[in-house]
Amino acid sequence: MGLDFTVYKGSEDGRIVKATTHRDSLKPDDVLVRVTHSGLCGTDLHYRTFDVALGHEGVGLVQEIGTDVKSMKVGDRVGWGYEHGSCGYCDECLGSHEMYCPDRQIFGSASLDQGSFSTHAVWPAKSLFHIPESMSSADAAPLMCAGSTVYNVFHLHSVSPTDRIGIVGIGGLGHLAIQFAAKMGCQVVVFSSTENKRKEAMDLGATEFYPTKDTKTLYIGPKLKHLIVTTSEQPDWSLYLPVLAPRAAIYPLSISLKDLTVPYMPLLMNGLTIQGCMSASRGAHIKMLNFAAFHNIKPINQVFPLNIEGIEEAMQKLHKGEIRYRVVLVAEGA
Amino acid sequence: MGLDFTVYKGSEDGRIVKATTHRDSLKPDDVLVRVTHSGLCGTDLHYRTFDVALGHEGVGLVQEIGTDVKSMKVGDRVGWGYEHGSCGYCDECLGSHEMYCPDRQIFGSASLDQGSFSTHAVWPAKSLFHIPESMSSADAAPLMCAGSTVYNVFHLHSVSPTDRIGIVGIGGLGHLAIQFAAKMGCQVVVFSSTENKRKEAMDLGATEFYPTKDTKTLYIGPKLKHLIVTTSEQPDWSLYLPVLAPRAAIYPLSISLKDLTVPYMPLLMNGLTIQGCMSASRGAHIKMLNFAAFHNIKPINQVFPLNIEGIEEAMQKLHKGEIRYRVVLVAEGA
Repeated sequence: MGLDFTVYKGSEDGRIVKATTHRDSLKPDDVLVRVTHSGLCGTDLHYRTFDVALGHEGVGLVQEIGTDVKSMKVGDRVGWGYEHGSCGYCDECLGSHEMYCPDRQIFGSASLDQGSFSTHAVWPAKSLFHIPESMSSADAAPLMCAGSTVYNVFHLHSVSPTDRIGIVGIGGLGHLAIQFAAKMGCQVVVFSSTENKRKEAMDLGATEFYPTKDTKTLYIGPKLKHLIVTTSEQPDWSLYLPVLAPRAAIYPLSISLKDLTVPYMPLLMNGLTIQGCMSASRGAHIKMLNFAAFHNIKPINQVFPLNIEGIEEAMQKLHKGEIRYRVVLVAEGA
Repeated sequence: MGLDFTVYKGSEDGRIVKATTHRDSLKPDDVLVRVTHSGLCGTDLHYRTFDVALGHEGVGLVQEIGTDVKSMKVGDRVGWGYEHGSCGYCDECLGSHEMYCPDRQIFGSASLDQGSFSTHAVWPAKSLFHIPESMSSADAAPLMCAGSTVYNVFHLHSVSPTDRIGIVGIGGLGHLAIQFAAKMGCQVVVFSSTENKRKEAMDLGATEFYPTKDTKTLYIGPKLKHLIVTTSEQPDWSLYLPVLAPRAAIYPLSISLKDLTVPYMPLLMNGLTIQGCMSASRGAHIKMLNFAAFHNIKPINQVFPLNIEGIEEAMQKLHKGEIRYRVVLVAEGA
């Protein structure tokens, strides 16, 4: 009885390991999803040395539902990112900030039947999102984490269509941030190390583009109200403070183990904000998907097969910085 | 014709210098104030080596008004802090953030007839504030900068009466922050290096008190939504991050020439905010004065005469950390 399915896990020495998970039956609120697509996020690189099922940008088809599930039916196309379930009763959950619920499991993939590098996954219905009809599954997958993280900045932090937005770095997050900002009507000022990605940035919706390598002082015209930082490491903050307007906000999205070191007095004198951010709440996530579908916001994807070889190759390329701009793993026959 | 009056200036070698300023006549919008009281702020120590009239926590009596002034009359008791005048037409001014107007003069005292270490000062009427009747002039003076700076945190940054507020340091700013937070109904959690000021903190309205010297880990019960940092130097930020709730905000008010260095990933994972702050806008400043008057919020003052000897002595004590908690200079016969 039950179901055996395949998951791809990390392991102590960093190899991707194929394993089988068994599930006897679904809990009343659970949904069994057959995975068709999965994004591969920088975070998965960090987790490849852990014994967890990897992947948290999943898209697939509902294969079976628990007895109490009302919001989805067999055959529905759904996606998931981080665990958004949480307790439902704490100050954070009740304030639509369930990503900060103390009970949250930050990587659903820590459970061996919830990763999206897999043939199937089991999630409570409340942690799954319907994919808008006009959006392909391959395009939806990277929105589950990358899209959600970028969109959350706009959603939570009073970004106005009349603002000038700076975006530092054009990669998995940056190329989505440019599109969201442009479609919201903002002036989009993009910073990248070299001239290489100028045309792509402008095509994605940038209004201005500045290379920063060997640059000591930036000259950009009117100053910026928001600075979204998507580089793989923290930038030289002192380069950017002079181009920020009073009361501007900085959103560092890079994953970095170094301390944050920022010139102090300019922060005070200009009333600047440094704002830590996570991926979006459920409510914001749904808005993100609808906005992206309406405006045809899409990740630029490189496709690999959803198996050990595909995962290993994609991870290697991502590690070397060779991905433009997002990995999607596609299941056989999807 | 006109008026000669005395100002106390800084000088290259740090001595306080007495000088005479002459004013022929008032511009139509100007108000001539006879100074009765002045606060002495840490910032004045920084400016004592500059050739500017010192003091920006002034209180006095209106002695003469320009032909267009409608909002004040001779004999009114008024105060002033930083220049709040500004252009009136830019995005910052129109958004009630005139302290960030590009035309602002950040220290009015840079002009030789606007410092509050003086017998008189001339200001545009719009830069002066009426002092509430129940508030003494000596109590009003330190509110013009210290009170304004502290209050602005509560005013601008969604501090709710149901929040737990941390206040680091009990000095010129901290002892006012405790009172404002307590009177707004917040739980007030105070951190000070030693036990010395415990009783004073509790008397001012603290609900909890924690000494931090030689402390590696803080145990404080429920976590904090806001942390107002009023120490003379930046604290060890890593001590405080673990006692902050998700989405908490840090407001560093210390003047410090060092970079801000904060553990980075906890900032992101907990959605923390680091918020640079300045003294309040005019609108917030008026609210601050009324709230302080209504709740009997008062600085604890040490009084010195408003003359060279008084200024020198007060500066020396402030520099040595011997002031509890705020200096007020009082004019002869005030």
